[in-house]
Amino acid sequence: MIQQSDPTGLHRVLDDFRVLPQAARRLDTRPELWPDEVRIRVERLNLDAASFRQLEQQHEGDGGAVRDAVLGIVADRGKMQNPVTGSGGMLIGTVEEVGPESPLGLKVGQRVATLVSLTLTPLVITDGLADWDGRSEQVPCAGYAVLFGRSIAAVLPDDLPTGLSLAVMDVCGAPALTSRVVSQYVDRGSAPRVAVIGGGGKSGSLALAAARAAGAGRLVGVVPTEREAASLEGAGLADAVVVTDARDPIALRDSVAAAGGPADVTVVCVDVPGCEGGAVLSTADGGTVIFFSMATSFSAAALGAEGVAADVTMLVGNGYVPGHAALALDLLRTDAGVRRLFEERLA
Amino acid sequence: MIQQSDPTGLHRVLDDFRVLPQAARRLDTRPELWPDEVRIRVERLNLDAASFRQLEQQHEGDGGAVRDAVLGIVADRGKMQNPVTGSGGMLIGTVEEVGPESPLGLKVGQRVATLVSLTLTPLVITDGLADWDGRSEQVPCAGYAVLFGRSIAAVLPDDLPTGLSLAVMDVCGAPALTSRVVSQYVDRGSAPRVAVIGGGGKSGSLALAAARAAGAGRLVGVVPTEREAASLEGAGLADAVVVTDARDPIALRDSVAAAGGPADVTVVCVDVPGCEGGAVLSTADGGTVIFFSMATSFSAAALGAEGVAADVTMLVGNGYVPGHAALALDLLRTDAGVRRLFEERLA
Repeated sequence: MIQQSDPTGLHRVLDDFRVLPQAARRLDTRPELWPDEVRIRVERLNLDAASFRQLEQQHEGDGGAVRDAVLGIVADRGKMQNPVTGSGGMLIGTVEEVGPESPLGLKVGQRVATLVSLTLTPLVITDGLADWDGRSEQVPCAGYAVLFGRSIAAVLPDDLPTGLSLAVMDVCGAPALTSRVVSQYVDRGSAPRVAVIGGGGKSGSLALAAARAAGAGRLVGVVPTEREAASLEGAGLADAVVVTDARDPIALRDSVAAAGGPADVTVVCVDVPGCEGGAVLSTADGGTVIFFSMATSFSAAALGAEGVAADVTMLVGNGYVPGHAALALDLLRTDAGVRRLFEERLA
Repeated sequence: MIQQSDPTGLHRVLDDFRVLPQAARRLDTRPELWPDEVRIRVERLNLDAASFRQLEQQHEGDGGAVRDAVLGIVADRGKMQNPVTGSGGMLIGTVEEVGPESPLGLKVGQRVATLVSLTLTPLVITDGLADWDGRSEQVPCAGYAVLFGRSIAAVLPDDLPTGLSLAVMDVCGAPALTSRVVSQYVDRGSAPRVAVIGGGGKSGSLALAAARAAGAGRLVGVVPTEREAASLEGAGLADAVVVTDARDPIALRDSVAAAGGPADVTVVCVDVPGCEGGAVLSTADGGTVIFFSMATSFSAAALGAEGVAADVTMLVGNGYVPGHAALALDLLRTDAGVRRLFEERLA
């Protein structure tokens, strides 16, 4: 019998062994709030790219089957957490009820995006996802979700379309941490060379813009196709754009080197497995690799660096950095190239 | 047709898609050397703790079955890489042949330990592991292994028993990186509080000793049993020793806090999955978590920190830091507590 809620949401975990909600197999989705909780009326889910891609591949592009899979996961686990990738996504909705002890500062009626993962957010879907064709990461959805004391939600800005804000907030950890790491170099008096693997994507383009704003030197964007290269070149976010399969470590090493590398800071933003080795080899001795892809393998990164005697600092991309949503939205507002890439992607 | 060797060992990869040896399914184990390679006559393997534990559990402690499993993996893959944990271990042996372009500085006849993982080292076992009972991580073994241009091997010191040197070198990345991170705090004028989860183990006890030598403030060791607690207390490596199940995030958070935390630097050295959340919650805002366990889940760490809005820097424990073997061996020589723990463990 639970006597008291915990800011981590522990009181909603239904597993026999005590784990945090993110690690739990199943969450309690009852709509009644504990004193520090907030209930959101859900309007849309934004599935994590790695998760959506996995589901799409597993079901061979059959949208109906993908929809059934998402419904099945949420009904079974009380949260949207892809059992293969372990990842989730985020959601937007309207604040429906605020517990008297909630520290989040939200008010009933505000439209918000949750900046904690769906993998730890109690969620109930009530419309069978009838308005979703299962073919896009953005999922129209009716239902409700619950936020805990230590959750994070951001009020959606008035000056930007909702889809755009959501897409930006979904990946706002990447530019914030990139900015912080680049700033540490700048504070020590150098302008680091930065390579962003997957520089044409959402988190990648924001990471490039954040690196430039923080004072980076040469910026290299790595993309998988000529089409993405043209798009990224048009956006003007990088000094050099190279087309390479990031899963080929030697090709990645050699192409980053040819574009002005190796990098002092390498940011991995691609949602495919197997990029750890190439990222390490693209990074200068004493440099830093930031892994933002949920497809990153911890052991491949650790052993890959050791295996080539690479003295690099490797960071797990933490999705939370104070002020991350505001920083990312400001980059979108002030950098026309970033905005165009996001709008192209959402079109 | 391969024309030239690559310092990463790429030329030994037999997979259709080009990956580094660590990521490869199968390696070429031919004994003939490329110009920058070294061949080692193997004497003993030291299996990674997470790998050995997994094999032991899978085969319910049946030593013969564990031995057959290791033989099967090596025959199939041309290297010792546990397919479940992804991890390997290291080996010792004698230098048998040195290619004319090898940059490693080794000489025929030297006894060495390889400091790159078995997961990327071409290996052939010739004695069927006849002298191993399958019940310990230390595996007497006849056969040969190949080192690449960028591999690392350390000559075994004369003043220490081989088993002791091997056990220390196997985990020497942990004290080296811990030392570097603590030194960064010390350089900024503070003596960080350090918590080592799994402080009674090999990497954990060395991490505690390295933290103290680097100028850490309060040191907390977290261990799973009263027996380990008594042993760690006897060794005098920590200011406080607490007994907690590190997989219980709330218990870990609360016990580290009660012992003088939260920690500025938390070092995770336990070989069980599910410790990411507790490590994050045990760490102060703005602090650093170093994950050294091969059982670490990348997504659990990334999403776990985000899920509780924790502004912590999370490092993938890189097994290579320049000078790591020498630093760890010196800690063993100069810290009687560390030495006693290692000798107890090997006894």
